[in-house]
Amino acid sequence: MPAQRTVPAQQTLLRGAMQRLDLTRNAFAERLGVTRRALDTWLLPASSREHRSMPDVVAKMIGTLGVPAAGAAAPSNLRARLTRPGKPHLLSVDVFDRDLAEEVLRVAETMEPIARREKVTRVLEGAVLGNLFFEPSTRTRVSFGAAFCRLGGAVCDTTGFTFSSMAKGESIHDTSRVISGYVDAIVVRHPEKGSVAEFAAATHIPVINGGDGPGEHPTQALLDLYTIHRELSRIDRKLDGAHVAMVGDLKHGRTVHSLIKLLSLYKGLKFSLVAPGSLEMPPALVALARERGHRVVEADTLAKGVRNPDILYATRIQKERMGGEGLESYPANFRIDRAAVKAHCAKHTVLMHPLPRDSTPGANDLADDLDRDPRLAIFRQTDSGIPVRMAIFAILLGVDHLVSGNLRDATWK
Amino acid sequence: MPAQRTVPAQQTLLRGAMQRLDLTRNAFAERLGVTRRALDTWLLPASSREHRSMPDVVAKMIGTLGVPAAGAAAPSNLRARLTRPGKPHLLSVDVFDRDLAEEVLRVAETMEPIARREKVTRVLEGAVLGNLFFEPSTRTRVSFGAAFCRLGGAVCDTTGFTFSSMAKGESIHDTSRVISGYVDAIVVRHPEKGSVAEFAAATHIPVINGGDGPGEHPTQALLDLYTIHRELSRIDRKLDGAHVAMVGDLKHGRTVHSLIKLLSLYKGLKFSLVAPGSLEMPPALVALARERGHRVVEADTLAKGVRNPDILYATRIQKERMGGEGLESYPANFRIDRAAVKAHCAKHTVLMHPLPRDSTPGANDLADDLDRDPRLAIFRQTDSGIPVRMAIFAILLGVDHLVSGNLRDATWK
Amino acid sequence: MPAQRTVPAQQTLLRGAMQRLDLTRNAFAERLGVTRRALDTWLLPASSREHRSMPDVVAKMIGTLGVPAAGAAAPSNLRARLTRPGKPHLLSVDVFDRDLAEEVLRVAETMEPIARREKVTRVLEGAVLGNLFFEPSTRTRVSFGAAFCRLGGAVCDTTGFTFSSMAKGESIHDTSRVISGYVDAIVVRHPEKGSVAEFAAATHIPVINGGDGPGEHPTQALLDLYTIHRELSRIDRKLDGAHVAMVGDLKHGRTVHSLIKLLSLYKGLKFSLVAPGSLEMPPALVALARERGHRVVEADTLAKGVRNPDILYATRIQKERMGGEGLESYPANFRIDRAAVKAHCAKHTVLMHPLPRDSTPGANDLADDLDRDPRLAIFRQTDSGIPVRMAIFAILLGVDHLVSGNLRDATWK
Repeated sequence: MPAQRTVPAQQTLLRGAMQRLDLTRNAFAERLGVTRRALDTWLLPASSREHRSMPDVVAKMIGTLGVPAAGAAAPSNLRARLTRPGKPHLLSVDVFDRDLAEEVLRVAETMEPIARREKVTRVLEGAVLGNLFFEPSTRTRVSFGAAFCRLGGAVCDTTGFTFSSMAKGESIHDTSRVISGYVDAIVVRHPEKGSVAEFAAATHIPVINGGDGPGEHPTQALLDLYTIHRELSRIDRKLDGAHVAMVGDLKHGRTVHSLIKLLSLYKGLKFSLVAPGSLEMPPALVALARERGHRVVEADTLAKGVRNPDILYATRIQKERMGGEGLESYPANFRIDRAAVKAHCAKHTVLMHPLPRDSTPGANDLADDLDRDPRLAIFRQTDSGIPVRMAIFAILLGVDHLVSGNLRDATWK
Repeated sequence: MPAQRTVPAQQTLLRGAMQRLDLTRNAFAERLGVTRRALDTWLLPASSREHRSMPDVVAKMIGTLGVPAAGAAAPSNLRARLTRPGKPHLLSVDVFDRDLAEEVLRVAETMEPIARREKVTRVLEGAVLGNLFFEPSTRTRVSFGAAFCRLGGAVCDTTGFTFSSMAKGESIHDTSRVISGYVDAIVVRHPEKGSVAEFAAATHIPVINGGDGPGEHPTQALLDLYTIHRELSRIDRKLDGAHVAMVGDLKHGRTVHSLIKLLSLYKGLKFSLVAPGSLEMPPALVALARERGHRVVEADTLAKGVRNPDILYATRIQKERMGGEGLESYPANFRIDRAAVKAHCAKHTVLMHPLPRDSTPGANDLADDLDRDPRLAIFRQTDSGIPVRMAIFAILLGVDHLVSGNLRDATWK
Repeated sequence: MPAQRTVPAQQTLLRGAMQRLDLTRNAFAERLGVTRRALDTWLLPASSREHRSMPDVVAKMIGTLGVPAAGAAAPSNLRARLTRPGKPHLLSVDVFDRDLAEEVLRVAETMEPIARREKVTRVLEGAVLGNLFFEPSTRTRVSFGAAFCRLGGAVCDTTGFTFSSMAKGESIHDTSRVISGYVDAIVVRHPEKGSVAEFAAATHIPVINGGDGPGEHPTQALLDLYTIHRELSRIDRKLDGAHVAMVGDLKHGRTVHSLIKLLSLYKGLKFSLVAPGSLEMPPALVALARERGHRVVEADTLAKGVRNPDILYATRIQKERMGGEGLESYPANFRIDRAAVKAHCAKHTVLMHPLPRDSTPGANDLADDLDRDPRLAIFRQTDSGIPVRMAIFAILLGVDHLVSGNLRDATWK
């Protein structure tokens, strides 16, 4: 089975490289330092008696050839479109139009074989990520770190509420500038809104906002959009015209704020926004969606607000946020469990959640009695963090065009 | 000197690769893209005038060739024997019979040149380990992490008592499933017995129990067994029929519990179990050893219980566990120092300890006045953590058969 | 532009390798497994029609060839001069004479293309660093970690005030010896003076003092010296005969203590030491500088002590250290801001600081109104941490002579 899978890959790889390098077979064989005859046998269909399997080292060599060779794949213009000159950062989803978002997601698609551990790339070998978490968020930190490792880079982590040097009065500017001299890209998670932008302002190396308190968390929004595309494609629907319900604390959830912005780039959606009275989606975001021609329905109970959506995006409600009498007046009616899904959702409804979810009994959250329901997409959603974050790193570091030429089979399973 | 050491390695490597790939010299030279003549010179004895030293890149190439080539070394069946389908975990020593334990230790032997920093392998290049320590244990965390790095992989660490997301009510199931989407293998250390098994139940990627409170710590037991084999071999004895004394807190020490299970797989041992009255080895484990035909002697002082054993395995006694009047009634008689060893041990007795040991004055522990005694095997014991953990990773990830074909000399010393 | 930059590198690399390996073109081509003709085209000037660009894999191969080949570049004697046999540590600057310091800095110079992210080396691939920070110092930890990664190695980090095992009574000796079995080099930061030396005494692998409280921090002193050399060279001056002002808390700052020792290795310097009454440079160090023939002027205000120095090295004064009435009597006269620089410095004066600096308003520290002043060298100074620490790792691990033959272009920008 490995042999069969390798064959088309071998031919695709060779043809792709010849095309990219714009070389004839003779010139390509010479470039590789192999005989023309050997190259020919590798290009033959597997069914041919003359077919030979290409040594892995040649695939490796081709990956390397592709990298800095003059005639190699042209760099994409994605970094230029995603960032401003001298400011190669990703701080907010506001930078996206629909085309740009979709092109970034297409790069993420090309990362899937690596994210699924079928392929290995070393395109960022030698690069170092500063993964700076000023507030703890283990899963997000590991997701960024693993994504960078899967591109071949190395990671220096920081966790904890503060840098010791910041405790000594050091400015964010200085911290940022110092770390920039050590690493090639920085992820910053910080509890205060705007502090990641302040961090980014002090440096010319790429900074990715990994969540700044109530502010933004753009890679989460991108992985949500990526998941929505893939899930809708699985059930044979399109995002234009889809019905998306968002349920829970829509006031404090930066996830749903960024997501509604991205979804509003599409056409003719229906948004069902369901939140307790004091936790509604901010009016400015509702207005934005309406201005762009989407239909928005707001409600304060599942029964009133959710009816067979294509996507149900649930978020957690912290009880202490439901106000004085919240606990009594909304005993459990924001709990999304099997019964609620049966009552309000369709057979095709995709169930999403940014995680973590509160699995303690009675929590106003997505319940775990749905864990075997195939509509539950929450782990496919977190899995998507790897290819999406790989794509962002690759784009910001200018290597997104090099990955496809720099792949080999994973040794492990 | 390096040249002399390299020569047999070069020939062994080449012959091994030809055998593994089942190729003639001509076919092998063709596969490598070198002339038959060059290959011949590399295979000649170093004493021959025609002998040439093989470029390192060829060794690298051979390693790569060995990896996914169709005809390469067949995967071992160790993973299948160590785990159940779909559950590639190592949670307990209960899975071992004697043959399986010895085969795992043989894989560990093959890791020695890497653990001793003479050789480098990159067989797991591209793989990522999630090294999750829910309770701190720096040395164990570094041991697992360094072992994975020495196989060529990268490591994402977590330390601290809890995941922030768990504080928000996330279940172990969710945490496990999310992290499984990011990494290729997981080590979990957790203060609560059974929680690692719960973690493992939620995922299909390999989980290794790195210690779950009073529960299990199987890689510690394996490295103890590995050390015992090597030390007995050094003094020209065999484990069958050996005399093993275990001293200290035998009630709370999961290390001695797992070790007595593994040792009981052998034949005709004598166990001397020496513990203060309230801290004895659990009766079930004593019964197990007796059922399997071993002789077990229990005692509550060194004088009564220890007489020239082959192995003396000491563990620490925490004073607060010695009971109300413990401090007075056992003033220091569980301290293993030079005098105690002189009184109770033979010239060949191997001194072991799981570490850390309490080096504060008067501690009921292994004393540091023995540090220059060649019988003291405690650091050879911790050193063994690297090859044993490398073996476990390699087996669970299905690459144990690839390591020997994927080696090169270390550049540093 | 990349093509143009690559061409001289390609020729330099090839010629350098032939020289180092002492091979003719024919022998070198044979060693690489390429035709003589191909080698010739790679060596031709870029302007020639026959010039061909060398496949990257060949550069990689050359790097590898350089590494353990019998005839390769001879190891330098720097490790032998920097350390004692069996004790390959860097614990103090006291080991340096002028020649040795300058040779180490020359090795650091060779690391610049890697530190600037133009080149990648993998010379330490397979090696593991134990980066043990018993007190937190994020920037220093990341600087050491990133330096080791940029040599191709992997890093296991520890942060926090103590090892859990030390809390259980484990001695520094045991901790050191255990970790030494896992990794290839150790950086230790510890709040207590002398504890790093105690750590080093227990092991035969390289230990680097990353700061032991009021004791030493030798790599900081080296990077300061490195920066001073580069900055003076930029303004076309030499260190012999230079005028160096040190300002601030000269009593508690281990940085200035180590730096004045290193600078005293040079000839005919003038030191202006400016500190509040209770925070003066220790008399023993003043005496040392004078014994070596330097002129030392001490003062307690900037106005009296600083007049157009070549280097102004500022350090922070913690208000609580200024004594009982300190706050009143020295309201802000140790603040180095634009006005102070205008009043006391020359147009060429280089402004340095070990960082972090206190940027809170009114702090007795280097002010951020100087941030756009080209004389401010503080970030060039922190940037120098990477090449200097790479040099120290490379020397202590015996690979400093291998780096130049083990380089390739970075893929990212």
